[in-house]
Amino acid sequence: MLTHADNELLCRVGPATPMGDYFRRFWLPACLPDEVTLDGPPIRIRILGEDLLAFRTSDGTVGLVGDHCPHRGASLFFGRNEEGGLRCVYHGWKFDTSGACVDMPNEPAESDFRTKVKAVAYPCQEWGGLLWTYMGPSHLAPQLPQLEWARVPADHRRLGRWIHQASWLQVLEGDIDSSHSMFLHRALDPDLQQRSRRFGVLNDRAPRLSVQPTDYGFVYGGRYRTVDEGIFNWRLTQWMLPSHTMIASKQFPVGGRVYVPVDDEHVNIFNYRYHPERPLSDQELAFIETPLGSPRRERSTLTLADGRRVDTWRLLANRDNDYLIDRDRQRTGNYTGILGIQEQDKAMTESMGSIVNRSQEHLGTSDVAIIAARRRLLRAVRDLQQGLEPAIAAMGDAYRVRSFDVLTSAEDLQEVVAKHQADLVAIA
Amino acid sequence: MLTHADNELLCRVGPATPMGDYFRRFWLPACLPDEVTLDGPPIRIRILGEDLLAFRTSDGTVGLVGDHCPHRGASLFFGRNEEGGLRCVYHGWKFDTSGACVDMPNEPAESDFRTKVKAVAYPCQEWGGLLWTYMGPSHLAPQLPQLEWARVPADHRRLGRWIHQASWLQVLEGDIDSSHSMFLHRALDPDLQQRSRRFGVLNDRAPRLSVQPTDYGFVYGGRYRTVDEGIFNWRLTQWMLPSHTMIASKQFPVGGRVYVPVDDEHVNIFNYRYHPERPLSDQELAFIETPLGSPRRERSTLTLADGRRVDTWRLLANRDNDYLIDRDRQRTGNYTGILGIQEQDKAMTESMGSIVNRSQEHLGTSDVAIIAARRRLLRAVRDLQQGLEPAIAAMGDAYRVRSFDVLTSAEDLQEVVAKHQADLVAIA
Amino acid sequence: MLTHADNELLCRVGPATPMGDYFRRFWLPACLPDEVTLDGPPIRIRILGEDLLAFRTSDGTVGLVGDHCPHRGASLFFGRNEEGGLRCVYHGWKFDTSGACVDMPNEPAESDFRTKVKAVAYPCQEWGGLLWTYMGPSHLAPQLPQLEWARVPADHRRLGRWIHQASWLQVLEGDIDSSHSMFLHRALDPDLQQRSRRFGVLNDRAPRLSVQPTDYGFVYGGRYRTVDEGIFNWRLTQWMLPSHTMIASKQFPVGGRVYVPVDDEHVNIFNYRYHPERPLSDQELAFIETPLGSPRRERSTLTLADGRRVDTWRLLANRDNDYLIDRDRQRTGNYTGILGIQEQDKAMTESMGSIVNRSQEHLGTSDVAIIAARRRLLRAVRDLQQGLEPAIAAMGDAYRVRSFDVLTSAEDLQEVVAKHQADLVAIA
Repeated sequence: MLTHADNELLCRVGPATPMGDYFRRFWLPACLPDEVTLDGPPIRIRILGEDLLAFRTSDGTVGLVGDHCPHRGASLFFGRNEEGGLRCVYHGWKFDTSGACVDMPNEPAESDFRTKVKAVAYPCQEWGGLLWTYMGPSHLAPQLPQLEWARVPADHRRLGRWIHQASWLQVLEGDIDSSHSMFLHRALDPDLQQRSRRFGVLNDRAPRLSVQPTDYGFVYGGRYRTVDEGIFNWRLTQWMLPSHTMIASKQFPVGGRVYVPVDDEHVNIFNYRYHPERPLSDQELAFIETPLGSPRRERSTLTLADGRRVDTWRLLANRDNDYLIDRDRQRTGNYTGILGIQEQDKAMTESMGSIVNRSQEHLGTSDVAIIAARRRLLRAVRDLQQGLEPAIAAMGDAYRVRSFDVLTSAEDLQEVVAKHQADLVAIA
Repeated sequence: MLTHADNELLCRVGPATPMGDYFRRFWLPACLPDEVTLDGPPIRIRILGEDLLAFRTSDGTVGLVGDHCPHRGASLFFGRNEEGGLRCVYHGWKFDTSGACVDMPNEPAESDFRTKVKAVAYPCQEWGGLLWTYMGPSHLAPQLPQLEWARVPADHRRLGRWIHQASWLQVLEGDIDSSHSMFLHRALDPDLQQRSRRFGVLNDRAPRLSVQPTDYGFVYGGRYRTVDEGIFNWRLTQWMLPSHTMIASKQFPVGGRVYVPVDDEHVNIFNYRYHPERPLSDQELAFIETPLGSPRRERSTLTLADGRRVDTWRLLANRDNDYLIDRDRQRTGNYTGILGIQEQDKAMTESMGSIVNRSQEHLGTSDVAIIAARRRLLRAVRDLQQGLEPAIAAMGDAYRVRSFDVLTSAEDLQEVVAKHQADLVAIA
Repeated sequence: MLTHADNELLCRVGPATPMGDYFRRFWLPACLPDEVTLDGPPIRIRILGEDLLAFRTSDGTVGLVGDHCPHRGASLFFGRNEEGGLRCVYHGWKFDTSGACVDMPNEPAESDFRTKVKAVAYPCQEWGGLLWTYMGPSHLAPQLPQLEWARVPADHRRLGRWIHQASWLQVLEGDIDSSHSMFLHRALDPDLQQRSRRFGVLNDRAPRLSVQPTDYGFVYGGRYRTVDEGIFNWRLTQWMLPSHTMIASKQFPVGGRVYVPVDDEHVNIFNYRYHPERPLSDQELAFIETPLGSPRRERSTLTLADGRRVDTWRLLANRDNDYLIDRDRQRTGNYTGILGIQEQDKAMTESMGSIVNRSQEHLGTSDVAIIAARRRLLRAVRDLQQGLEPAIAAMGDAYRVRSFDVLTSAEDLQEVVAKHQADLVAIA
C-alpha cells in the first residue's frame, strides 16, 4: 500500500519530476540498433515523457534528438538524414548528433546564427545489443551497467522491444513477484504443462519469499518445498536499480527485462534471453520464435493520447481485444485462457489501469519484494531530491550479477546467499 | 432551466456525489439474467461510475463484484469462475459472491490473511426478468419495487438492455415529454402512419399537460382534443423515483423504460413491454422483432473514454453514423429520416451533448413534467444530503401503478385521476 | 518567440476571448455555396469555437444558426429544412434564417412564447464564390473585403475548402515565410523540378526579406539574387488582416488562402486561384485537378475531440498516415517525400502540435514577416481590448491589392513599392 502522494512520486517520470530526475541518472535502453539504418529515416521514441528521434548517420553514429526543430517547432521526423546530421525539411536547418546546428541555409550569410541554436540531443551508445542513452546532466554521466547479457557476444543473446500501456512500476512489479507464476502462467493440459516446465513452473504455490538488500538493489529469494522433506528449491533473482529484472534460474538460456518509462502511462520493455558461455543453439532460437518463446507482435506506429505518434512494437494480444482470451482454453488449456507468458503478464498489469491506485491494495508476505523495491525507490528519489546523487549509477560493475536456483536444506535467504555467493556473480 | 450548480447536482452520479448517493438507496437493474451463464465468464458493467463484474456460480447465484482484485488491482474480468466464486488469475485469490476472500493460495498458511480482505460486492436479485442490485448501505436496503411488469410471469413480457451516450437525466426526460411524439415519431407516408398508430401517435400536436404529485413520483396527464367537441383523450402515465417511466396507454402490451446511470455521461436503458393478464402472442412477439418494435442492436464491448471496456448492447444507429439518417426518407417517409422510435429518441438526447447545458433552455408548458421531475429530484437529493432518507425506497408496493388512457369530458387531471383511480392501479 | 501569455492571446479564439473578439469584427468565409442546397440538409460547421449549421432555404437564402435548439438543446442538424426555416424534429419548433422562432406547434395557442425565443444566428452573404458570415456585434458590421479574386466573375477563379488540425496562426505563418519554398517544396528529379517552376521555386535559398506596414496589414518582399549581378528578382506579397494571404507572383492564375479558425486547434483553409482578366483556361483547370495543382481530398465528417461532428474536407495525406511520406521519393524525387505543396505545408504546421510552443522558437531574419504579423495582431487585439475598434474592418476597398514580382536593380523594399505602386493594386 502506498499513499496517493508516494504513488505519484514513483509513477510520474516526465521532465522535472523527482522520479524522472532519478531515471535521468542512468543509462537507459532507447531502441534496438537495427531500428535505425545508415542514412535511413528517423524513428519516433518517447522516453520519460520526452519526444525524441533516433537516427543513424552515414558513418554509423546514432543520434537521439528532440522531435521539434528549434527554429519554429516543425517535426524533424520528416527530416532528411544527410551526411552526419538530420536536416529539417521546412527551412533546411541541419543538426548533428550532438544537437549542434551545422547548417542554416535559409539565412543570408551575415545573419546566420547557427552557433546560437542547439537542438535537444542526448548521447547514445550501442551496448549489449541495444542502443542506450543518458538523459541527465552531462557532468554526472555514469558508467554503462556491466550486465552479463550485455557483455556476451551478440550470438549468445536474443533481444526484443515492445510497449505496454501502463505505468512502468506496476509492470516491473510483476517481475519481482514470484508467486504469480504458479497461477497466471500455469498450464492445465498435460501437453502445455510439459512445455511450461521450461519456465520453471513448480508446484509449491506458496513459496516463502525474502529479500536481501544490496548496493544495486536486492537479491530476492523464493523457498519452494520439494518432494523431499527438509530439502528446498531456492530460487534467487536480482533487482537492479532502477528497473532491471531477471528470471530466477540457473538453466541457461535465461531471460529478463529492462523497463524504460515511455511516459507516466506507458513503458517500453526490453526483453533479453542469453547464455553466458556459448551461442544460442538452433533449437533454442527456434523455440524463441514460437508463441511460448516470444510474444507475437507487430511493428506498429501508435498514436498516444496527446496525438503524438511513436514507432514501436505492439503485442497482437492487447487491451483492445481482451488479450485474445479464449474462455474454453481457460477451462481446459491454461489458467488464463490467454496464450503466452508475456501476454499473460500484460493482461494483469494493464488491467490495473494506467496507474494503479496503490492506496487500495492488500499486500501480503508474497509481496515482500514489491514492498522492498518501493521503499528503496522512495528512499533513492528522496535522497536525490535532497541533493544526494545515487552512488550505484557510478558502479557499472555492480551489475555483474546473476540469478540462480539450487536444491538445499538452507532455511533462510542469508544462508543461501552466503553459501552460494559465487553463483550470484556473472562470469562474462 | 437549471443553474449550472443544480444541473451538476442532478447529473453527477459517481461514488460520494449527492445524486449518486440517492440512486444508491434503490434497487437498480444491472443486466439481463442470461448475460451471465452458469460458471461462465464474468461480464463488465459500470453502474454509477463503479466498474463491476457480474458472474453466475454453479448453483445459479449471481455475484456482482468490483472489477479490481483487492490484492494488487488486477482485473477480475480475466478471472476463473469456479465453484461459488471468482478467482483472480494473477495469484489465485478467490472471492465469493459476498466479496469474501475464500482462498489465498499464494500465501503460506501462517500468513494467510484472507479474513482481512473483502472485495467490493453488491447483493443481486433476479426480479421481473432482470438482475437487480443494491449499492447502498446494507442496513438501508429497501424492498424491490413491485412493478406490474416485474410481477407477471416471464412469458407476459419482453425485455432489452442497451446503452446511450448521454447523461441519464436528459434521456429520461424524453419519456416525460408527451408532446414530442407528434413530431419526432411522426410517420409521413400512409403506410408508416398506419403502423405508427400502434404507438398512439395522435393528431393534437399541442396537448394540455399537467402533473399530480404522488408518493412515488407523479401522475402525468396529457389532454388531447378529439374530433368530438368537449370530449378529450386523456393519456395518463407515471414517473416513479428514481427513473422508471412508462408509455401512456391502456392498450396492452404496453412498454416503458428504467434508466440506470452507467456514469455521468452514459446510461443503461432497460426497456420492457408486457401484458398484465396473458402471455404475449406470437403476432406481438413477431412485431417486437421488427425495426419498429425494437431498436436494431448488437452485442458490443465498448471502450469508454477512460479506457475501461464494458459489455453491453449498442444500437446500430448511433452518433458515429448520424443515426443512419436518410434525408430522402425525411422528406417523404417519416419526420426525422431516422428509423425506429428508440433511435429517434437517441438522436435527440445524445445530440444535446453528454450533459446538456440546462442553463440555456427555454421551457414551456409542454415541459411541465420535466420541470416537476427536476424539482422533485432536487428536493429528494437535498433531503438526503440533510440526512432524510427517501421514504419511497421502503415502499415496494407503491410501484404497483399503471399508465392509462380514456375518452372523457373531464377538463383537468385531478378530475380524471379521481374518476379513474382504479385504472391507475396495477392488477398483477 | 512569444511568451506563453502572448501565444495564448493569439491562439485562443472561442467566444469571449480577445482574439476571438477580434476575428468577430470581420466577415469570414464559412463554407462553399454549393455545400448547402435548396431545401437540402444543414451542414455542421464550427467557427471560432461555435457549433453552427448552414442551410439554404427554398428561395436561396442561406442561414447560419446555432447547432442546439434553444428549447432543450437537441441538435438542429437533424432538423427539417422547410420553407424559409429550419425546424427542430424534437418538438417542431421552427427558426428562420435570422434565428427568430416562427413556429412553436407543441404549445397550446395561449402559452405560445415564440417571440421570447431566439436561436443563435449570424448573417450570411455569398461573395466571391464563398459564403461569408459576420459573427460580431450587429451595429459594427463591416464591409465585405473587396479582394480581387472575389470581385472577378465566377469562371475566373477556382476555390476549395479543407481543414488542418492545428491552430490558425501557425498555419497562416507558413504563408508569410518565403524562404521555406526553396526547401520544403523543392523538387529533386528533373521532371518534378520542371513542373515545380510553375510555383516560382527559385534557386536563391536565402532571400533578403522585408516588410512594409500598410493600413490592411503589410507588404512583404523577398529579394532574390539572379544570374545577373546587380539584378534582383523581387517577389512581393501582401498580408491582410486578419488572415488573408497570397502567393507572390504576377503570373496569373495566382493563388492564395484565407484562414478561418474552427477552434483553438483546427483551422479551415479557403484556397483560391484566379485570373483577374479572363476565365481560367481548360489547360489551367486541368492542371488544378492534378495532385500538384490541388491537394487530394475527400468530403468527410470529422469527429472532433469533444465528440462534435463537423462536415468538411480532409486531405488524404494527413497526420494519421504520416502524410503518405515515401522515404525513397524523399531521396530522389522531392525534398520531403510528400506529394503536393499543400500536403507539405500541412505536414510541417501540424507536426508542431496543435498549438506550437512559441516560447521555444529561434527566429531569424527569414522570419521577419512572421514577427511583424504577430506584433501587428497583438497590437490590434490589445487595442480592441481597450475599446479601440479595428479601422480596417470598415475599409472594404483596402483589400484591393495584389502580389507582384519583378526583375529590378532596386535594393530595398520601399524603393520597389514606390516604383511599382500601381502593380500592387488590383484592377478587378
